[in-house]
Amino acid sequence: MRMYDIIEKKRDGHELTDAEIAFFVDGYVAGRIPDYQASALLMAIYLRGMSAEETRLLTLHMMNSGEVVDLSGIPGATVDKHSTGGVGDKTSLAVVPMLAAMDPGRTFVAKMTGRGLGHTGGTVDKLESIPGFNTALSQEAFIDCVREHGAAIIGQTGNLVPADKLIYALRDVTATVSSIPLIASSIMSKKLTAGSSCILLDVKVGSGAFMKTVPEAVELAQAMVAIGEGMGRRVKALVTNMDRPLGHAIGNALEVAEVIETLHGRGPADLEHEVLLIASDLLELTGHCTRQEAEARARRVIADGSAFAAFKEIVEAQDGDPRVLDDPSLLPGATLTRTFAAPCDGFVAHIDTEAVGIASAELGAGRLTKEDAIDYGAGITLLKNYGDPVVAGEPVAILHANDPAKLAAGAERLAGAYTFAAKQPPATPLLYATVTRDGIVYA
Amino acid sequence: MRMYDIIEKKRDGHELTDAEIAFFVDGYVAGRIPDYQASALLMAIYLRGMSAEETRLLTLHMMNSGEVVDLSGIPGATVDKHSTGGVGDKTSLAVVPMLAAMDPGRTFVAKMTGRGLGHTGGTVDKLESIPGFNTALSQEAFIDCVREHGAAIIGQTGNLVPADKLIYALRDVTATVSSIPLIASSIMSKKLTAGSSCILLDVKVGSGAFMKTVPEAVELAQAMVAIGEGMGRRVKALVTNMDRPLGHAIGNALEVAEVIETLHGRGPADLEHEVLLIASDLLELTGHCTRQEAEARARRVIADGSAFAAFKEIVEAQDGDPRVLDDPSLLPGATLTRTFAAPCDGFVAHIDTEAVGIASAELGAGRLTKEDAIDYGAGITLLKNYGDPVVAGEPVAILHANDPAKLAAGAERLAGAYTFAAKQPPATPLLYATVTRDGIVYA
Repeated sequence: MRMYDIIEKKRDGHELTDAEIAFFVDGYVAGRIPDYQASALLMAIYLRGMSAEETRLLTLHMMNSGEVVDLSGIPGATVDKHSTGGVGDKTSLAVVPMLAAMDPGRTFVAKMTGRGLGHTGGTVDKLESIPGFNTALSQEAFIDCVREHGAAIIGQTGNLVPADKLIYALRDVTATVSSIPLIASSIMSKKLTAGSSCILLDVKVGSGAFMKTVPEAVELAQAMVAIGEGMGRRVKALVTNMDRPLGHAIGNALEVAEVIETLHGRGPADLEHEVLLIASDLLELTGHCTRQEAEARARRVIADGSAFAAFKEIVEAQDGDPRVLDDPSLLPGATLTRTFAAPCDGFVAHIDTEAVGIASAELGAGRLTKEDAIDYGAGITLLKNYGDPVVAGEPVAILHANDPAKLAAGAERLAGAYTFAAKQPPATPLLYATVTRDGIVYA
Repeated sequence: MRMYDIIEKKRDGHELTDAEIAFFVDGYVAGRIPDYQASALLMAIYLRGMSAEETRLLTLHMMNSGEVVDLSGIPGATVDKHSTGGVGDKTSLAVVPMLAAMDPGRTFVAKMTGRGLGHTGGTVDKLESIPGFNTALSQEAFIDCVREHGAAIIGQTGNLVPADKLIYALRDVTATVSSIPLIASSIMSKKLTAGSSCILLDVKVGSGAFMKTVPEAVELAQAMVAIGEGMGRRVKALVTNMDRPLGHAIGNALEVAEVIETLHGRGPADLEHEVLLIASDLLELTGHCTRQEAEARARRVIADGSAFAAFKEIVEAQDGDPRVLDDPSLLPGATLTRTFAAPCDGFVAHIDTEAVGIASAELGAGRLTKEDAIDYGAGITLLKNYGDPVVAGEPVAILHANDPAKLAAGAERLAGAYTFAAKQPPATPLLYATVTRDGIVYA
């Protein structure tokens, strides 16, 4: 078999076989296939596409390129969730303890997650704003923690999916990132490697997401559901609105504080809505109960405090200081604040959500390059979101920073992200569609 | 400017600017752009195409990537021809001396040419079958020879079009060879660098050519004519039949002997027809006379022996032994021959012309890899061509070799290249179309 023939076949729009895809993935990881042939194939895939079966096989061989997490020692259903990335998306932090509380001893969350880059935050960074929280558990400690406490959250560890690391780095410099089969295989190879049997995918769409339109988000959701179901997992995808930040808080400690409020039943309506949706859908996927019962349990674990207790248990188990959960003022803070005020009477007509995310990163809450350090106390508190009425001079957002230059940069960016109008813009849904193996249901 | 943005722009089907194309070509030659980005761009060009203006600019910047031959010291029109490559195509060897004889002191042929590779022969190899012939003249000696004798033929020399060498090598391993803009810019950058003001392109189409269909050959012809005319040269392209070898002889010394016969007016009809066409068209391009007058002169220089005399003068001027022209038996020969006979009564229904070329290479006449040495005496004499009637046992071809293993390999290949049928196949033209700046004329 020759790489040349594989490139030529995809260039001409034909379907690659299992053996050909394995030849590429294994050969590239082993260094037998040079970058210039891999990038030619990636561009051909970008422009010619891949069938559902090709995408599944690509994912399979990427997944098998390194270690695979073995969750077979966990005595129950294992569930995981993944968001394609947004601004203010702290749902994982709430959903993980909720699930541990919703079905104790039967449903477990062994969650591996990433750091933020660019305009999106990362769950690992958010957790690390809790003093002492350890996201670098060994595989054994991780699984022990899941077994004992029902859930654990760690950063990506070990030699997982080396093919994805290599292929993604090449895509990043050859303009081949925004391809549905390549995005789907990259995400799903990591999710499947992490071992859970039920996976809820939150595909974000809008100005703050990588997917800019509902049809392309639905296409990505379909591709990922097909991959996961094709590998024997239960997978559901939600296509949700990222034309507006989720909740009010953006920035690591600010988001942890908002999660605490949400687990106490005092969270912003949009965040609470999405958290209930994801938690209920995930529990339904396990087959342990109906969707209706799952939703009742999701509401109950918030109402009775058991989700909050589960969060506290996880934080303690992973060496975090549990006192911050009872007193969020102990979380890292900011010495400087500035208010962004409405320039006129009217309504918030549009939010460039990606710019809001970049503003937060510029304040210190995120990384603009991989080397940047995080300021856990920095971020933005939104007082007005999409469609909200405002009067001139009314505060729209409060910016938090520990560095005057960063505060100024973030403030300037944020001011450019909001658009106001005299007329209220049309209401948009939080959920556009759900995708399962049975098809697409538009909300 | 970033290479990433250039790849992305072409990936999305947009037209690249002069500055962007220059950035790519200059940066790649200088080693600033890595192979993996260049190959991603080449695949995007392959699948998205290039406009005529983009193709012209690519050619221009490739041409200017190295030295350019200066023919300004030649006191008259300079003409050149190029064939996209075929089997038995020895037209250059005849056309060059014909032109020197057709318009002496006014039209000059400064021809730089290549070696054979794969199934096609090369003019340099054919000339080197003449004992002593020197195809490695210095630039100065080359131009002196053209000025003094009206014509000279040398191999490619110096640092001409380094961008083409680099880009072609990358295309060759990334399945991006067969792209009209990339082929056209590769051929034309070399032709334009060679400096002639009038260029005749012979675009071969059929089983022995790189272009397999007339429409794609016409498209390539149009692209090349547009490039050359867009750079102020006079260019005409012929789209000719390569579903059958040209003439009877395939192999270096065999083809030189056939050229001698043709210059004496005793050549095979198809070869003579094409040689007259090319020589007449080229002289017409100079504007020195009408097409009718050019054709009359082409016929005359054969009839009166002046074309043959011009060939002899060129051979002598380039240190070749002129005695072989009067006695072709002095050319390198073969110690072994084998006859391929018709297996049945009927007609030659189809010739896999590429396979015939490979058979000749296997006999020793060509290179299957760049390192192979040439056996100048090896090759094939075709006695029957496409459409000819045969009776069972009648000789169809004679194979010539100096190595029994090579003879056996070539014979087996040749036997598989011919197809016979009871019914005579339809006649096919030698010329399908001509392409000039004024448009396409189908023959």
